[in-house]
Amino acid sequence: MPAEAALKQDDLQSVMTALGRAARAAAAELALAEPEAKKLALQAAARAIRSQAATIAAANATDMAAARTKGLTPALLDRLELTPERIEAMARGLEEVAALPDPVGRTLAEWERPNGLKIARVSVPLGVIGIIYESRPNVTADAGALCLKAGNAAILRGGSESFHSAGAILDCLQAGLKEAGLPEAAIQRIPTTDRAAVGILLTLTDFVDVIVPRGGRGLIERVQRESRVPVFSHLDGMVHTYVHAAADPEMAVAVVVNAKMRRTGICGATETLLVDRALAESQLPALLQALKEAGCIIRGDASVRLAMPEAEAATAEDWGTEYLAPIIAVKVVAGLEEAIDHINRHGSHHTEAIVTDNAAAAARFLDEVDAGIVMHNASTQFADGGEFGMGAEIGISTGKLHARGPVGAEQLTSYKYKVRGQGQTRP
Amino acid sequence: MPAEAALKQDDLQSVMTALGRAARAAAAELALAEPEAKKLALQAAARAIRSQAATIAAANATDMAAARTKGLTPALLDRLELTPERIEAMARGLEEVAALPDPVGRTLAEWERPNGLKIARVSVPLGVIGIIYESRPNVTADAGALCLKAGNAAILRGGSESFHSAGAILDCLQAGLKEAGLPEAAIQRIPTTDRAAVGILLTLTDFVDVIVPRGGRGLIERVQRESRVPVFSHLDGMVHTYVHAAADPEMAVAVVVNAKMRRTGICGATETLLVDRALAESQLPALLQALKEAGCIIRGDASVRLAMPEAEAATAEDWGTEYLAPIIAVKVVAGLEEAIDHINRHGSHHTEAIVTDNAAAAARFLDEVDAGIVMHNASTQFADGGEFGMGAEIGISTGKLHARGPVGAEQLTSYKYKVRGQGQTRP
Repeated sequence: MPAEAALKQDDLQSVMTALGRAARAAAAELALAEPEAKKLALQAAARAIRSQAATIAAANATDMAAARTKGLTPALLDRLELTPERIEAMARGLEEVAALPDPVGRTLAEWERPNGLKIARVSVPLGVIGIIYESRPNVTADAGALCLKAGNAAILRGGSESFHSAGAILDCLQAGLKEAGLPEAAIQRIPTTDRAAVGILLTLTDFVDVIVPRGGRGLIERVQRESRVPVFSHLDGMVHTYVHAAADPEMAVAVVVNAKMRRTGICGATETLLVDRALAESQLPALLQALKEAGCIIRGDASVRLAMPEAEAATAEDWGTEYLAPIIAVKVVAGLEEAIDHINRHGSHHTEAIVTDNAAAAARFLDEVDAGIVMHNASTQFADGGEFGMGAEIGISTGKLHARGPVGAEQLTSYKYKVRGQGQTRP
Repeated sequence: MPAEAALKQDDLQSVMTALGRAARAAAAELALAEPEAKKLALQAAARAIRSQAATIAAANATDMAAARTKGLTPALLDRLELTPERIEAMARGLEEVAALPDPVGRTLAEWERPNGLKIARVSVPLGVIGIIYESRPNVTADAGALCLKAGNAAILRGGSESFHSAGAILDCLQAGLKEAGLPEAAIQRIPTTDRAAVGILLTLTDFVDVIVPRGGRGLIERVQRESRVPVFSHLDGMVHTYVHAAADPEMAVAVVVNAKMRRTGICGATETLLVDRALAESQLPALLQALKEAGCIIRGDASVRLAMPEAEAATAEDWGTEYLAPIIAVKVVAGLEEAIDHINRHGSHHTEAIVTDNAAAAARFLDEVDAGIVMHNASTQFADGGEFGMGAEIGISTGKLHARGPVGAEQLTSYKYKVRGQGQTRP
């Protein structure tokens, strides 16, 4: 290796270590911060976002121009762009997180032992959270705010195309921290677009407690593979909606079309529709027709193609494909048991729904389907921390450890046991 | 590699995969088991332990004879031995776990959204737990029972010296499962003493959800290093007791002597004593004297050696040493702040205690010390799931993720969100 490259790698390592050390120190301070100080910092950051809207827009224009030159797709350009409405939405988002109940210092459980020891389980912050995301500059505000609310320090790493936009937003967050007397290192970002920095972040086990990757499959897979720090993530949203024999026909159409077509690119969008065989001649044609009229391409099994001859034939691969597009795989199943079995085999433990008026079938579905979120008579598009009333989310976890489903401020905490005695010794 | 060795490795891999697959299937069944079935299985297993006490004792005699031939230390032989009292204690332990409240299916939180969606967070089992432990046959019963109570399948791997004893105990657990109509694969063990099997277990990410290593530093380090499955563990119990300026002198002596000397080999035993400078001439000599009379070797800083000239001089290394022996490091600190700072620097986030009659100092210590368990006016030897009233524990976690402190049946669960609607679609 040439000496210069080696030096650069050493430099990067020491930059990252310094970042981690500052985050750890800030986290220790934040863990003891008054709820009011965190609230104040978030409100002040919202004010700064509004007063610096022109600066943020200018930084974003720089990023947009470079991205256009680079030939980014319209979808990526759309994610990158900050309109005045989107800047205002960021400010409002900060205020909403500010208004959430403080998740730190809650007594989660308490009890007294026969010997008089009083034991309390009390929530505490996790520590330092590393967030790796694509070129969506608003994630800078969302993720920084949620970490701060839960008393955690954040190390942010946004996509390189959003570098200037994210920097301008970070300035506002740090201005808020400063105004509230909190350490500015509570929210930092990696000051380079060098991809090697991500690799270092994933191994900073002394300074980082959790990594949250937000983005496409490639990013998540890399993080899950390389990280030595625990990861909150989901790889897929391989989501099903099952229309049971006892479904209300109108509700089924409304829920299925919304679940698939409201926004096809989000992780809670339904990808496979399961329909009970009992409905193959009654409700199935209307369901397929409604999807088609909403602009959805249908790939079905033989029963589906009997009901709609122009439907494409589904292959085995379709039952495991997250389209994130106006395409749906449709399968006719013998009943509840086959539906649950199909979902537990092909699902990604994210969100799964049943439509039925039969309470026993719904209860069995909710019990037996193994997913972070299981729904009865509702659109899977509600799989979102905001829709859950959790204020905001840093992501959705499909793992079973620590946090499952939407990861909001409450899920960014751990706990400690406080034991209060009067001099007890153990016999 | 010779063909034969390769074959053997392949065989082991397929044995382990089959074990994992059977555990996964059993876990799916257990997750839906009635609380009464799990209770019945545990009570039946306790009866089997009692009725098979002679068989267990005979298997243990085989293990003990081999261990003596092998020249195991008296401490290890003591851990391996099963006396009639210890066999009865295992049966009682199973009955105690049976009597615990069922940790699965609890509604942890529930709320309703303005649009009428009803959201409930409900506890579910983690899935499959792998437990790796040394040659302490009773862990077979304890760990198997806790996993079962929480609806998890267990894959056990005990130390090779306890192979026959553990097998006889496992037979009793499986007899209990059978009597309750639950799958016998709910509690399995690795059917070989080949160390390579552990390496395979640690990478069975499709079939194992959590690994719990119980044992010495070498084992824990290996598991933490090699495991691709999440691990609940603690490496050290680098535990401190701090005697604050406002401590009650008699209480301080009683608590400190108990914290250090009751059992010196457990992870909750105090390893370093911090004493406030204000007490250097008043209480310190009595504390040191009491420890010395209890048979403890004292390694102190200069202030300590002024108070007790025969004390050994502590080196920098002593402040980070987990002796697990009748040795204590003693340091005089300027006050609360230095004590907290010393503990957060040298502690292992396990258990830390303050002795004081000053409520404000106690509150600050409990808030600012970063450990799973923080105690006021009580012996650190209470750091134990049984003493916490959690029934039993599978171990103590010093990590911040998922489970912190004693890991009992409740901590061996995850949760899912059940969302109940009336046909809601997302605008």
